[in-house]
Amino acid sequence: MGEFDLIARYFTRRPQRALLGVGDDCALLQPRPGTQLAISCDMLVEGRHFFANVDPESLGHKALAVNLSDLAACGARPLAFTLALALPEVDEAWLSAFSRGLFALADAHSCELIGGDTTQGPLNICITVIGETEGQPLLRSGAQVGDEIYVSGQLGDAHLALQGLLGRITLPADLLDQTRQRLERPDPRVALGLALRGLASAAIDVSDGLVGDIGHLLKASGVGATLEAAALSPLLGAGAHPAWPALAQSAIDHVLAGGDDYELAFTAPVSARDALTRVSGHTGVRLSRVGRIEAEPGLRLVDAQGQAVDHSARSFDHFAPAP
Amino acid sequence: MGEFDLIARYFTRRPQRALLGVGDDCALLQPRPGTQLAISCDMLVEGRHFFANVDPESLGHKALAVNLSDLAACGARPLAFTLALALPEVDEAWLSAFSRGLFALADAHSCELIGGDTTQGPLNICITVIGETEGQPLLRSGAQVGDEIYVSGQLGDAHLALQGLLGRITLPADLLDQTRQRLERPDPRVALGLALRGLASAAIDVSDGLVGDIGHLLKASGVGATLEAAALSPLLGAGAHPAWPALAQSAIDHVLAGGDDYELAFTAPVSARDALTRVSGHTGVRLSRVGRIEAEPGLRLVDAQGQAVDHSARSFDHFAPAP
Repeated sequence: MGEFDLIARYFTRRPQRALLGVGDDCALLQPRPGTQLAISCDMLVEGRHFFANVDPESLGHKALAVNLSDLAACGARPLAFTLALALPEVDEAWLSAFSRGLFALADAHSCELIGGDTTQGPLNICITVIGETEGQPLLRSGAQVGDEIYVSGQLGDAHLALQGLLGRITLPADLLDQTRQRLERPDPRVALGLALRGLASAAIDVSDGLVGDIGHLLKASGVGATLEAAALSPLLGAGAHPAWPALAQSAIDHVLAGGDDYELAFTAPVSARDALTRVSGHTGVRLSRVGRIEAEPGLRLVDAQGQAVDHSARSFDHFAPAP
Repeated sequence: MGEFDLIARYFTRRPQRALLGVGDDCALLQPRPGTQLAISCDMLVEGRHFFANVDPESLGHKALAVNLSDLAACGARPLAFTLALALPEVDEAWLSAFSRGLFALADAHSCELIGGDTTQGPLNICITVIGETEGQPLLRSGAQVGDEIYVSGQLGDAHLALQGLLGRITLPADLLDQTRQRLERPDPRVALGLALRGLASAAIDVSDGLVGDIGHLLKASGVGATLEAAALSPLLGAGAHPAWPALAQSAIDHVLAGGDDYELAFTAPVSARDALTRVSGHTGVRLSRVGRIEAEPGLRLVDAQGQAVDHSARSFDHFAPAP
């Protein structure tokens, strides 16, 4: 099977929103007047972002999910994406499963594949996603002193699964299965991001670990923050597993340093509390208040008594040695 | 140097046209009302699209040039691009030269880098480019029976250089240098593409070889064509070199089957001849009339007497064995 057959069989569908989709030199989009386009791009490399033996359907899901998560963090509605795919060989079973996972998530978010490129090479998946925002988008730079810090869903379970799969820790089989879902099939918080427009003052998606990503938000906003350990520790889903105490792991280390969470961290004024409770209700996404924005630069962690807690969490760096 | 330092040092500049550039979860673009966005994506893989020892400044140029060429083929004005880069290691000399070549071409076309991704992995460069079109864009699908077929510039020299670099043929040093410029520093025909709006009935960029790319245009338009060998042979720049006759190469084989030309092939009605002569004059790009669109499907090649000429040219297929 050649390149053009490959594209025709696995990656060509009738355009829905696009004026022109796959098959010409460019795709054509016509955004509505009064909107801005939000654009983001993520590349996944075998051995770096996923294991060689990962389920290809999950990989198709995740490759798009990590990009949709960036749109969510900007409060953007997904429109379309391009896919560039380097493949060592044409493996039809792999392509069939990969495209199934990819399109299932794309359809769930009405996000259309409008073009791309396929080539022979070491497995590499590069997606650029395009969304639209109306009014004021959610940026990293809007946090104000006195705002409260929230995170969505759960944090740290994906990182725990990764440690288990790497053989660095031993997890009970059911706990590995549960946390692996979080690693391999993240659920981008698109509906939450849309609902946060006009409520949140700043937002970022948590992809490289909470400490590092909150750090980007603080830097962009020119502020500091204190996080509460007692509010963070329960965010590790695995912490509720019967085996957890015996594992003698520190839940908060996974929550703080994790990675691959694809949740949203955001800030909002105290006056937004009730509205955020309603957002949590109608989106079905748990929102946890975990800290507060302060004028003093830096990120501090305190216990229930307000005493400083040591933490050595570092953010995931794509040029550090592989995890 | 970590990922964020790398981005800050080599790939972050103040936004010009974008509302928001590199540094948040997404970039934000606000296209003008009444315009469509044209989007294209190309991935370059080491060993497949370029040699490991290629000059990184030329590589930065070419990685963007091949994408701008797709915008040119749609008659779109470049706006912005994303860059995803997988690097085996952080090599500052390489990055400095690569970004210099990239931004020189970007600046020449007022095309802004608005975001992307960097990661560790086998060298892979993925660019998604975004342009805007007004009115009717140039598509592959508009060719009409009786239209004439044109190509811009020269064809086949890049393919000749590639054969020389692979050691398959021996070229005099000056001829290798001359043709290698065409392989490594293609000049995307953006101004020509813009000038062809309203004149050309269909267009495509010649990247995989003239026969294959014209074939895509014919298929999309539901027509056939005849090309004239006498008009094509002179398009090989190398054919004018004193050593050419002694090389005993067939110029037309390189012209037809080439690849990496990044010229435009387009169709236009006979009534557009004078206007196209003026376009050639003000863009400084040679336009050659090389054939005619016909109702009979397929692509035929004829000599000056109208007799069929055999050719075995095939298009470049990204999953065929490496050239």
